[in-house]
Amino acid sequence: MKNLKDILPGRITTEKEELFCYGFDASKEEGLPSAVARPYGTDEVSRLSEFAFNNGIPIVPRGAGSGMTGGSVPLQGSIVVSMEKMNRIIDIDEKNMVVTLEPGVINRDLQERLEAAGLFYPPDPTSMNFCTIGGNIAENAGGPRALKYGVTRDYVLGLEVVLPDGTVITTGVKTRKGVVGYDLSWLIVGSEGTLCTVTKIFLKVLPLPEDVITLLCSFPQLQKAAEAVPAIIASGVIPRAIEFMDSGAVEAVESYRPVGLPSDSEAVLIIEVDGAENVIRQEAEKAAAICASYGADVKIADDIYSRERLWESRRALSPALYHLKPTKINEDIVVPRTEIPQIIQSIRTIGQKYRLKIVNFGHAGDGNIHVNVMTDKNNPDEYGRAQAAVRDIFEETLRLGGTISGEHGIGITKSKYLGMELSKASIGLMKGIKAVFDPKGIMNPGKIFP
Amino acid sequence: MKNLKDILPGRITTEKEELFCYGFDASKEEGLPSAVARPYGTDEVSRLSEFAFNNGIPIVPRGAGSGMTGGSVPLQGSIVVSMEKMNRIIDIDEKNMVVTLEPGVINRDLQERLEAAGLFYPPDPTSMNFCTIGGNIAENAGGPRALKYGVTRDYVLGLEVVLPDGTVITTGVKTRKGVVGYDLSWLIVGSEGTLCTVTKIFLKVLPLPEDVITLLCSFPQLQKAAEAVPAIIASGVIPRAIEFMDSGAVEAVESYRPVGLPSDSEAVLIIEVDGAENVIRQEAEKAAAICASYGADVKIADDIYSRERLWESRRALSPALYHLKPTKINEDIVVPRTEIPQIIQSIRTIGQKYRLKIVNFGHAGDGNIHVNVMTDKNNPDEYGRAQAAVRDIFEETLRLGGTISGEHGIGITKSKYLGMELSKASIGLMKGIKAVFDPKGIMNPGKIFP
Repeated sequence: MKNLKDILPGRITTEKEELFCYGFDASKEEGLPSAVARPYGTDEVSRLSEFAFNNGIPIVPRGAGSGMTGGSVPLQGSIVVSMEKMNRIIDIDEKNMVVTLEPGVINRDLQERLEAAGLFYPPDPTSMNFCTIGGNIAENAGGPRALKYGVTRDYVLGLEVVLPDGTVITTGVKTRKGVVGYDLSWLIVGSEGTLCTVTKIFLKVLPLPEDVITLLCSFPQLQKAAEAVPAIIASGVIPRAIEFMDSGAVEAVESYRPVGLPSDSEAVLIIEVDGAENVIRQEAEKAAAICASYGADVKIADDIYSRERLWESRRALSPALYHLKPTKINEDIVVPRTEIPQIIQSIRTIGQKYRLKIVNFGHAGDGNIHVNVMTDKNNPDEYGRAQAAVRDIFEETLRLGGTISGEHGIGITKSKYLGMELSKASIGLMKGIKAVFDPKGIMNPGKIFP
Repeated sequence: MKNLKDILPGRITTEKEELFCYGFDASKEEGLPSAVARPYGTDEVSRLSEFAFNNGIPIVPRGAGSGMTGGSVPLQGSIVVSMEKMNRIIDIDEKNMVVTLEPGVINRDLQERLEAAGLFYPPDPTSMNFCTIGGNIAENAGGPRALKYGVTRDYVLGLEVVLPDGTVITTGVKTRKGVVGYDLSWLIVGSEGTLCTVTKIFLKVLPLPEDVITLLCSFPQLQKAAEAVPAIIASGVIPRAIEFMDSGAVEAVESYRPVGLPSDSEAVLIIEVDGAENVIRQEAEKAAAICASYGADVKIADDIYSRERLWESRRALSPALYHLKPTKINEDIVVPRTEIPQIIQSIRTIGQKYRLKIVNFGHAGDGNIHVNVMTDKNNPDEYGRAQAAVRDIFEETLRLGGTISGEHGIGITKSKYLGMELSKASIGLMKGIKAVFDPKGIMNPGKIFP
């Protein structure tokens, strides 16, 4: 990497200790980069890409490494392009409600800056306290509020990206609309760093909702909770979030960071409505009544403090599960909302079949369930059963008209399942598109495609 | 086309009189197809494509031919694939709020079927009474309600498409989320029939808004109307529509289909808010007060009859303009909302410079202005000045951070301007993607790319 250090003096490290720190992500997949670059701007990313392109060295753009499927794990001796220094919010255009920022900005930091200006950026991945907007774009991240407000993609107006050979282009527009040529922005969103490196982001934002009410509903029966979800939405109320936790999830979080979730119930729904104060009162009461009719005990959290405690517990869930078992296989299937009761039932059956503890939680309003198969990688027999269970769960998900990933992407961990959902022809088109952007295949190799 | 008639008996016509009817669209561009096919289903489209592919004959998918840029005009002796027989609404899944339909469904028919079920499909192109959903997808159509609800793309969950060689694939998902591989659906939306033929559409829909209020605001000064638009949105009120007409537009519609628009004003805004009754009252009053503070006279239309009359007048505008001049060059630029006063001023100056009548109307809330340069194709001198004026307007639009097309697409009429907005590298990527889908270049040739 000698010449690279000359090209970007002071931006490159090849110290083993540091390289280790950039070799993994939340999926626990691992790799070792040949170098880590910390560019300070588009121009530096461009020079880096050009060097990598000319020398046929793979590169991997990296945000916070909070991905769940290994998207940012460097394979094949890639150079990690860490966006930690490109973390400026460049402009908040309040009148046009457009924000310009660099990819390294932490989601939570953007949220707070905007709220201070009376603005609102809905996408709120559970890792929002540390994940970056660039990473959110790479994975097309969702979050609880996707139910009402959509996912990352829905807020991307345009991007500045560096192509593998170093060429800088701008995609999309900075206006509310634009149909000039093909939509490259929305192709790049969710492409997991396999097409190009995002260096600037133009986001659409909304006015901050007037008020928020959060409900905690505990159900004596899991199935009743699952049935309540479509019932709420069919009633015409679209909460901004309907989060679901089964008893295993509640147990895990209570034993790790107790917040007083009712441990005697089989399932919990956290329901949040936002909007004009007088409207959401009615909506909250309507949702509460529906949950009660399915046997739930309902508590209202309408002050910021109790709301935050609820959400902290929800966000603590993923780490908490590691206290149950050393390995969790965390999937994020989506089914049509009305199929939630069926998939929950099927997962329970599959868990029994393979003698495994499976913990379910997630964004029930979207039909997006995080299925956590708890196991131990060092126990080959059990781990084998866990792998088989995952395949069964995916088959059932697809049978119900669902998808094997709602927001985590494919990365490394899911690529072997890609063919279960996509036809050969579709995968062929995607590989063709990849080759158009990345003819030498240096962008984040070993991801998405088996 | 002998063999084609054997492959799709009863679906193919080559009668000159009929071919003429499929040779144009609302852009007044013209071509003559070698044949017109009216398939009844995906399988027939697939057989047709395979035939075209094997014989190197171009094909052009066609909805209602209401496009403004020549997207559906058959060039190079293309076979027109008219979707008029593929017009079934296959399924309305009320509980999951997902609709499955064929591309030939008329936008208005879908709207009405959904409203009867208490559901809502926001995209409402001005041609909604006759344009098709398939055409809306080809152009990524917008409409007045895009201000609050977004454009066609924002409602497309997935597609069934026929690739040029006849292969059928399904893109995207039928669920609320999905991030498995690249997003082919949103690449196909807005691709103007240049990549593949859409045969089935999966749309997300919303609950029908409780109530709607429409305001008619007439401004003594054009600039004040332009200034009022960003002021309304900055106040936190997001109307579902803010439509703008200058005095030329008001004149045209009043002389063609009088609805009593105030002819003494320099500009009119039609502002529409929707949602919970008690909320939109407040929002309507807020918007009315802001308009009044900019000197507007405000009328409230809160019954369906007077509302519809207003919208009919708005929809009559485009045809009405032909009563002013034989030729209108209709552009649909977008600028950041706050630049509307500037672009309106610049357009006025450009009109004076070239001694042309330019009529402006459109979706001001989005910054999307329909600029109509009124001229006569048979008057070479005037038509030349009109062409020069259009280029000046595009230059100014781009200077202000805008785009040269907000919803009409590029088609034939705008392809010569593509390079004004997109870099060579971007156009290169798009052509590369086109080649991946359409290696023989048989899909709607002569469109988008110069």
